[in-house]
Amino acid sequence: MENDAFKELKEAVLEKISPKPEERAHLKEIAELLIKKVEYIACSMGLKGVSANLVGSAARNTWISGTHDLDIFIMFPGNASREELEKNGLTIARKIAEESESFEERYAEHPYINMRYRGFDVDIVPCFRVESAACIRSAVDRTPFHNEFVKNNINGLETDVLLLKQFMKGVRVYGSELRTQGFSGYLTELLVIKYGSFENVISSACEWQPGTYIDLNSHGTIQHAESLIVVDPTDPKRNVAAALSLDKFCMFIDSCRKFLLSPTLDLFFPKSLAPMNEKELIQRFKSRGTAFIAITFKTPDVVEDVLYPQLYKMKLAVVALLEEHEYRILNVGSWSGKKTVILLELMSATLPALRKHRGPPVWVHKHSESFKDKYENAEDIFAFYIENGTYVAEVPRKYPDVNSLLKERLTLCSMGKQVSSAVKNGFEILQGSDICSIQDMDFKLFLANWPGRSNIIQ
Amino acid sequence: MENDAFKELKEAVLEKISPKPEERAHLKEIAELLIKKVEYIACSMGLKGVSANLVGSAARNTWISGTHDLDIFIMFPGNASREELEKNGLTIARKIAEESESFEERYAEHPYINMRYRGFDVDIVPCFRVESAACIRSAVDRTPFHNEFVKNNINGLETDVLLLKQFMKGVRVYGSELRTQGFSGYLTELLVIKYGSFENVISSACEWQPGTYIDLNSHGTIQHAESLIVVDPTDPKRNVAAALSLDKFCMFIDSCRKFLLSPTLDLFFPKSLAPMNEKELIQRFKSRGTAFIAITFKTPDVVEDVLYPQLYKMKLAVVALLEEHEYRILNVGSWSGKKTVILLELMSATLPALRKHRGPPVWVHKHSESFKDKYENAEDIFAFYIENGTYVAEVPRKYPDVNSLLKERLTLCSMGKQVSSAVKNGFEILQGSDICSIQDMDFKLFLANWPGRSNIIQ
Repeated sequence: MENDAFKELKEAVLEKISPKPEERAHLKEIAELLIKKVEYIACSMGLKGVSANLVGSAARNTWISGTHDLDIFIMFPGNASREELEKNGLTIARKIAEESESFEERYAEHPYINMRYRGFDVDIVPCFRVESAACIRSAVDRTPFHNEFVKNNINGLETDVLLLKQFMKGVRVYGSELRTQGFSGYLTELLVIKYGSFENVISSACEWQPGTYIDLNSHGTIQHAESLIVVDPTDPKRNVAAALSLDKFCMFIDSCRKFLLSPTLDLFFPKSLAPMNEKELIQRFKSRGTAFIAITFKTPDVVEDVLYPQLYKMKLAVVALLEEHEYRILNVGSWSGKKTVILLELMSATLPALRKHRGPPVWVHKHSESFKDKYENAEDIFAFYIENGTYVAEVPRKYPDVNSLLKERLTLCSMGKQVSSAVKNGFEILQGSDICSIQDMDFKLFLANWPGRSNIIQ
Repeated sequence: MENDAFKELKEAVLEKISPKPEERAHLKEIAELLIKKVEYIACSMGLKGVSANLVGSAARNTWISGTHDLDIFIMFPGNASREELEKNGLTIARKIAEESESFEERYAEHPYINMRYRGFDVDIVPCFRVESAACIRSAVDRTPFHNEFVKNNINGLETDVLLLKQFMKGVRVYGSELRTQGFSGYLTELLVIKYGSFENVISSACEWQPGTYIDLNSHGTIQHAESLIVVDPTDPKRNVAAALSLDKFCMFIDSCRKFLLSPTLDLFFPKSLAPMNEKELIQRFKSRGTAFIAITFKTPDVVEDVLYPQLYKMKLAVVALLEEHEYRILNVGSWSGKKTVILLELMSATLPALRKHRGPPVWVHKHSESFKDKYENAEDIFAFYIENGTYVAEVPRKYPDVNSLLKERLTLCSMGKQVSSAVKNGFEILQGSDICSIQDMDFKLFLANWPGRSNIIQ
C-alpha cells in the first residue's frame, strides 16, 4: 500500500485537515489564556491546590483543522468535597463566561459550563485530581489520565490519528455520543498506538471479528460482550469501545476493505447526496410498493444523549406493538429536528377484517369448553372450527389498519420519560406521500437516504 | 342419561335407520342367492375347496336401512397361488356379473368386481382362507376374521352400533376412506363392544386424549403414534383406527360433549346448509377482508383413495411455496367434482416490489465480499446496507403477486402423479369474486361452509 499514489492521497487529506502553524499558535494562545484565568481566579478566591489543564485532542495535537474545541479542566484536590467542587468550579467558570460571546450551564455527573469564547467552543469542567484512573470520583476525572497516556505514547503518530479520524468521519462511524454509537477520539488514538499507523489500523480492521480484544497494557480484568474490546490503559475494567454499536463496527470493517480496494479522497470527504424534491421522493417511495407510516411529535427539550436512547427504546416498542398485531415491518428509523419523526416501512398498512384466534386443544376439556362457550356463538364471530386439534375462532380484528392501532395504543408503549411525555402531549400519524410534505431539508435528506441508516429490525 | 326423553330419541333415530323385517328378508335372500351362485360356478369349474361368504355389516346386522351393500368373499384355499386366485376369482365374478344391471372391475391388492345386482351394490372379492389374521396373504383376507370376531362378540348390541354409526354420519366423522379419514364400520363395532353401549361410547369419548389405547384382547405388541389406538382383536400389530385424523378424532370428542349437553335428533340428521347464491357468497367473502385464490383443473380420473392423498400433498406443497415467498396463508381447502379446486385464503395476494435479502455477517470476509460484489451495484437494486451485522440487499421481488407465482411455479410443486399431470395439462387461477362464479351446487355449498372443513395450516 505504501506507494506514491497512496502517499499523495494522504498528503491531499492532511492538506485539508492538518492545522496550519498559525491556527495552532492561535489555539495555543487562547488555551494558555484560559488556563491562566482559571488559576488567577482560583487564587484570588483563596482556593488551595486548584490548577487548570488543557485536555482532549487540542492538548494532544490530534485535532482537525477548523474544529475549535477546547476542554479546560479545573482540577480540585482529590479530597475536596463534591459541594466545594461544584460550587467553586461553577464560580470560576461563570467568571470566565462573563467575557464570552455566549454560554450555558450543562449537566453531566456534575455541572459545567460550555461557552463560545473568541471563536472557540470551550468546555470548562471541574474535576477531582485523583491518584489513578482506578479511583476516580466522577467520570470526568478519567480524562486527565487519558491525556497523559496518549501524550506519552503517541510518539509522532499524530497525523495518523488525524487521517483515521477523518476517514471515520467520512464513512460515518466517528463519534461516541449515543446518537452515533461510533468511535470516540480517544479510541482512534489507542488504535493508532496499537497498530502503529493509519494504514495498519485499516488493514487490520478488515479482518476484525466480533470479540476483537485489544489490551495495550495486558492488564484487562473482566469479560466484555461488545463487538470490539479496547481495554482502557488507565483503567483495566473499562472498555473504551463500549459505546460502539455492532453496525458501526461492521460499517468500519466494510469501509476499510473498500479503502484497500480503492483508496480515494471520496471516502474521507464524501459528496453529500442532493436532497430530492417532494415529487422525486414520492416517486421513489411508491416504487418500493411498501406502506410508509410516520409518527411525528414535538422534539422534547433534552440533550441528544438523553433523546437518542429514548428514541431507540420507542422504535423497539413500536415495532413490538405492530408485530404483536401481525403487521410486518421492513424498516424503521428516526429523525429529529424541531419535530421528531419515527418512520416505519411496512409490508402493508392494512390487514384482514378477521383474525384467527387459537384456543386450547379439544382434549383439554375444561379450558377448551370455556373457550368454546366464549366464542362459538358470539355475535361477531366469523367462524368457529377445529384445526390441528385445537378450536379456532375467527374473530374481528381490532386494528385492521395500523393508523387505528397507533392512535389507540402508542401512548401505552414504553418510550422513556421525556419522549413519552412529548408523545402524550400530542402526536400525528402521516401516511404515504403526506410524509414527504414535512418541510425540512435535513428530513428530506433522511428520506433520500432511506433506509441506508442503521436499522433495528432483526 | 337413561331417561324417557333419551329413550324416545333413540327410538326416533332407530325408527329411521333400523331395517324393517321385510328389508332384512330381502337382503338375506339376495345374499344367499349370490353365495349359492358362486359355489355352483366354482363347482362347475372343477375347483376344490372354494366357498363363498357374506361379510361386512350386512353379515353382522349392523347395516343402516337403505344402504344396500353386499360384500361376498370368494374364499380360496390358503395354499392356492396368487395367479389361480386372480384368474378363477375373476372368472366366477364375471359369470355372475353377466346377470347384473351393470358392473366394473376394480383393483385393490388384487382385482375384484363391483356390480349393481337387483338394486344392491355388490362387491365380489376373491381372498385366501388363512389360519389366522396374523398370516394373511392379502389385506382383504383379514375381513372374514373381523366378521367372525364381531359376530361372536356383539351380543345383541347391534342397535347400539346403528346409533353410533348414524351419530358419526350426522357429525361428519364416519368413513375411513382417505377422503374422510374418520371411523370405519368395524371401528364403531369394536367401540360398542368395548364400552358396552352407544351412550357409554359417547360419555367415554368426552374424555379421550391423544394416545387413547383400547386393546380388547390385551395382545397389542407395538407402539402406535396415532390419536386413537384400537388394537385389532384379530391382529395384535394392527391399529384399526390408523386412518383416523387428529381433527376427526377431535370433532368426534366435541360432538359427544355436545350430545351430552343436549341430545337432539339434529345431531344424527343435521339440516343441510342452504347453498348461498353468488351475491351472498361474494358479500360474505368480501366482509372477511382477505384475499381468495382458487387453482382449478380437470379432476384426474382416479378413485378417491388415490385422489385425496394427492390433493393433500398438493395443498401442503402450495402452502410451502407461497410461504417461501413470504405470503401468509390463513386457510386452504380442496373440493373435487368434475373440476378440482384448491382454494387459498391469504392475508394479502400482493406484496411489496422489493424484498430484503440478507447476506452473511460482514466479518465473514470471503462470503460477505462475494455477496457484496453480486448485489451492491446491481442495476435493479433498491438499497444495500448493513443491518444487525449483516449485509442486506433490497432486491426486486420476483413474484409481487400470488397469481404470477402460481403461474410460473405451480407445476414444479410435488403433488402426486395423477394430480401433477392433471395440473400440467392445464390449470386456471381465479381470484376474488370470480371464484363464486364456478357453477356447481356442491361447490357453492363448500364455499358457504368455508373454512369450516379440516384445514392443514399450523
